[in-house]
Amino acid sequence: MSLTPEQQAEIEELRSQRRETRRTVAGGLEARLYEAIPVLDHGFVRVIDYMGDDAAIVQAARVSYGRGTRAVQNDAGLIRYLMRHWHSTPFEMCEIKLHVKLPVFVARQWIRHRTANVNEYSARYSILDREFYIPAPEHLAAQSTVNNQGRGATLEGEEAARVLDMLRADAGRAYDHYEAMLSQDGQQGLARELARMNLPANVYTQWYWKVDLHNLLHFLRLRADPHAQYEIRVYADAICDLVKDWVPATWGAFEDYRLNAVTLSSQAIDCIRRMIKGEKVSQEDSGMSKGEWREFEGVLNA
Amino acid sequence: MSLTPEQQAEIEELRSQRRETRRTVAGGLEARLYEAIPVLDHGFVRVIDYMGDDAAIVQAARVSYGRGTRAVQNDAGLIRYLMRHWHSTPFEMCEIKLHVKLPVFVARQWIRHRTANVNEYSARYSILDREFYIPAPEHLAAQSTVNNQGRGATLEGEEAARVLDMLRADAGRAYDHYEAMLSQDGQQGLARELARMNLPANVYTQWYWKVDLHNLLHFLRLRADPHAQYEIRVYADAICDLVKDWVPATWGAFEDYRLNAVTLSSQAIDCIRRMIKGEKVSQEDSGMSKGEWREFEGVLNA
Amino acid sequence: MSLTPEQQAEIEELRSQRRETRRTVAGGLEARLYEAIPVLDHGFVRVIDYMGDDAAIVQAARVSYGRGTRAVQNDAGLIRYLMRHWHSTPFEMCEIKLHVKLPVFVARQWIRHRTANVNEYSARYSILDREFYIPAPEHLAAQSTVNNQGRGATLEGEEAARVLDMLRADAGRAYDHYEAMLSQDGQQGLARELARMNLPANVYTQWYWKVDLHNLLHFLRLRADPHAQYEIRVYADAICDLVKDWVPATWGAFEDYRLNAVTLSSQAIDCIRRMIKGEKVSQEDSGMSKGEWREFEGVLNA
Amino acid sequence: MSLTPEQQAEIEELRSQRRETRRTVAGGLEARLYEAIPVLDHGFVRVIDYMGDDAAIVQAARVSYGRGTRAVQNDAGLIRYLMRHWHSTPFEMCEIKLHVKLPVFVARQWIRHRTANVNEYSARYSILDREFYIPAPEHLAAQSTVNNQGRGATLEGEEAARVLDMLRADAGRAYDHYEAMLSQDGQQGLARELARMNLPANVYTQWYWKVDLHNLLHFLRLRADPHAQYEIRVYADAICDLVKDWVPATWGAFEDYRLNAVTLSSQAIDCIRRMIKGEKVSQEDSGMSKGEWREFEGVLNA
Repeated sequence: MSLTPEQQAEIEELRSQRRETRRTVAGGLEARLYEAIPVLDHGFVRVIDYMGDDAAIVQAARVSYGRGTRAVQNDAGLIRYLMRHWHSTPFEMCEIKLHVKLPVFVARQWIRHRTANVNEYSARYSILDREFYIPAPEHLAAQSTVNNQGRGATLEGEEAARVLDMLRADAGRAYDHYEAMLSQDGQQGLARELARMNLPANVYTQWYWKVDLHNLLHFLRLRADPHAQYEIRVYADAICDLVKDWVPATWGAFEDYRLNAVTLSSQAIDCIRRMIKGEKVSQEDSGMSKGEWREFEGVLNA
Repeated sequence: MSLTPEQQAEIEELRSQRRETRRTVAGGLEARLYEAIPVLDHGFVRVIDYMGDDAAIVQAARVSYGRGTRAVQNDAGLIRYLMRHWHSTPFEMCEIKLHVKLPVFVARQWIRHRTANVNEYSARYSILDREFYIPAPEHLAAQSTVNNQGRGATLEGEEAARVLDMLRADAGRAYDHYEAMLSQDGQQGLARELARMNLPANVYTQWYWKVDLHNLLHFLRLRADPHAQYEIRVYADAICDLVKDWVPATWGAFEDYRLNAVTLSSQAIDCIRRMIKGEKVSQEDSGMSKGEWREFEGVLNA
Repeated sequence: MSLTPEQQAEIEELRSQRRETRRTVAGGLEARLYEAIPVLDHGFVRVIDYMGDDAAIVQAARVSYGRGTRAVQNDAGLIRYLMRHWHSTPFEMCEIKLHVKLPVFVARQWIRHRTANVNEYSARYSILDREFYIPAPEHLAAQSTVNNQGRGATLEGEEAARVLDMLRADAGRAYDHYEAMLSQDGQQGLARELARMNLPANVYTQWYWKVDLHNLLHFLRLRADPHAQYEIRVYADAICDLVKDWVPATWGAFEDYRLNAVTLSSQAIDCIRRMIKGEKVSQEDSGMSKGEWREFEGVLNA
Repeated sequence: MSLTPEQQAEIEELRSQRRETRRTVAGGLEARLYEAIPVLDHGFVRVIDYMGDDAAIVQAARVSYGRGTRAVQNDAGLIRYLMRHWHSTPFEMCEIKLHVKLPVFVARQWIRHRTANVNEYSARYSILDREFYIPAPEHLAAQSTVNNQGRGATLEGEEAARVLDMLRADAGRAYDHYEAMLSQDGQQGLARELARMNLPANVYTQWYWKVDLHNLLHFLRLRADPHAQYEIRVYADAICDLVKDWVPATWGAFEDYRLNAVTLSSQAIDCIRRMIKGEKVSQEDSGMSKGEWREFEGVLNA
């Protein structure tokens, strides 16, 4: 990540200001406000604003469930109860606004999460910067041979070099021509909305992304998952860190009941009941396909 | 509205606290935080939290449109431009959380606006209070004879008294029986989730309602409109006042380009072009139906 | 349920018509089109229209995953794979439109599912019928003593009679007064939008409800669940039957991976690993609260 | 557009089939089902399925407004009334599913419309085809000098040739390298999810896009507008043609009250009132900015 001195100064200026508010303040997240957390080679995530904290979730739940919530003695306990029983609306009462700089192919995955507000830098109006994602050598993975969407071993030596050369050269040339199209000598140049089509999917874009906590956790569950593509997972990981500081009780419940939880099919839970009784169960008499059985063994032996 | 002394003290306590934040602070709305604005006979609207202000809208727009926004000299001008050209995403970057107490029949209209987060008091878990909306005499309107969903003249004298008597007596009896079902002597009582079915639609409920500014303005356009039912319009009016204090530049643009704007059909704008040229246009040669023509005349003579 | 002879005739007429189409036809659901499936004492569910079938889900998945889906040999297998791995978008490619008649307090729960299209009968425009939900004696449940939102034993004898008398009498009187307000002798009557506030939450309303299959399954998972309130669960059950006829392969996968599946927390799955190895695990060394442990035992001994 | 003979045969096969249904059938759209309507150089739009027609909108409205709709004599009149008064929910009762092939930079604009269901071809799972959008010479526009996001005059001669050469050469080379990365001799090749990042934004992708009629009309209003980028407008235009065949009464109302309608600000409508009375109004005493006044004059003189 390379912030210009101007940008760095602006961030420092924002971070140095202190104002009075009557609103709920989440101390852990205040400390992180505006700072640019580096992700990939040129990307970042920044918290621009937020609303609410763990206490705001509890407060909303108590409006919903009224006297019914008195039985639960403390806030963290109530939050765990809400998470365990899929009461999602109290978590919607918190909101966060992030500034994210990310490659276009990552943005294309990200935007599929529809329940969020987005303001993306427009390449119709403005000119994109010369910044492209080039994978670090250790992330230059081969196609998996067992999984259509997975990665296999890391490419090495000449193979790796060849790929990196192509990515770098093509990105550079594409940007040179983008600039050349935009400003032709003695001409006003091609319309920006057209010239941008020459840029590859590893060019960086940026946006403001605003989302409620419930939908953010759903995003994180899918994108901080080991099966998610590495290049979006690192963004999810950076956001996980922020959530941990923002709503620590919710984060703990999320880890236990979502991130590290396991959903077992009707057949799988039946097998477990038999296994606990001491029965030896094999794939053949499990009611599961070979693929499911493999996943099931993975869960048991994790 | 009747807040208990306990509730009043809680509000005072919340209003007296001051905390430091690095976030954007909207001074006008800070002054209104937590206070209960009375609506109807027992209802209220309270701001519980908010995110962003006019400057946050501008900031988001500048991310989107980049250098393209430099041409517009000031923030209010840019906000007017965005509103006029239906660029809605920057307005989604602000968020507000309200606590609302309202009759159930109003809640049923309100909830039709789907793009919002809601935590409603649950009558499955908890027991509703004995509070019912009884219209003030001046709002006891007869059915309109010209409009299926409209109101006509105000009922008066005995007619009004008869209606009010029925509303009061039925609500009171329904609540007495609700209580009686919930706690039968020597019994545990009917399940709350069943007993509630005896309560009429003017019983008060309450909820936390969280929405982004763009969707809030859409709600206000429909519900602060003279054609909206009076009982929801007064809530919309109270919220309009809050928006004015929260994002004054946006409010001004919203008034000019939405609330007080007029959408003219293809036929209507054509008639106007002819009229400005001095032509005399009548319904017959306007291309409009009688109903449309009446509405058109209403616009011209407003 | 009491359809008027007129309504019955209209349904017969609709069911007798046959038209040619080039679209996908779901034979199992065609057979059920328009018929009114009775629910509760006056309610019903009817399929008015639908789009797609199991094959349409597969077709959409193959667009997404292209050659990647060739590995899965058959349609049912691919649907199971999609369900198991939470690939939800192909299921969004099917859509269903239902006509539902239901008590208002059920409608209020139902509408909380926001991702659907709704046209509800408007009591601002029109006059509601004299139809109220009165629970059958076997569903007149006492409040649970262990669960704030649950039901306990069934009320019996005099207690039951007393409750039913109150529900019937209050509904009847409320409707009499509703009518009296609407048409006062020699007057035009109170506005419909006001008079409706006198009607209790067990009055029936009706709506068209249109939803995609993914969101419908989510609704069914929550509302066909044993913890859902009985009065909405019977609607969910009726719809489950329709889904079974509409998309049988999807239904099978939904049963195995959602309805009858179990989500285990990080702690619970850890306990299971220990138990399968022969270890004796108790609540105290499980890492779970008492409440969680009780739920966990419930899963193992189901 | 170049369909393979296989694809062409599949379309013919689909078009030749006829099945019986009890559902509403929209004759005008049946005739267009499955056919690929060419858009740009390699793109297309195809209707895959639909639900409802003009009559279904009326039917839903009559459920909502009950007896209140009897006053309107015919279906087209009711549809015009609904459109004019922004009653949007009946239009949500129709649904359409399209198969679209489009350049990635167009897909990126399109996806910003969030209320729709999408299954896009995944370049993580599968390999993209060698197809790129290269503008026809008459659409190779210069950047507008007055509008940051607009187009100016068409590039000609050498300038045009130079741009086209760059676009073609860069796309070809990017694809060559994409292939080379995917299959390196004696290696399994770079992961598809990485290799795709080398492809420029004019590469074609495809998706299934399903949307309700209300949200489709909103999309068309924005994207069939003269200010929309040409490359998405041609898709919107093709879809407009389909909507015309699908729901002709709705289309007529949409043209009059949306596409060709004009929204006038508070200030503008005030000026019109003065002008009709014969007053001469200038920008200075209009209450409008210069930009607004220019737009206002554009409306009056259109």
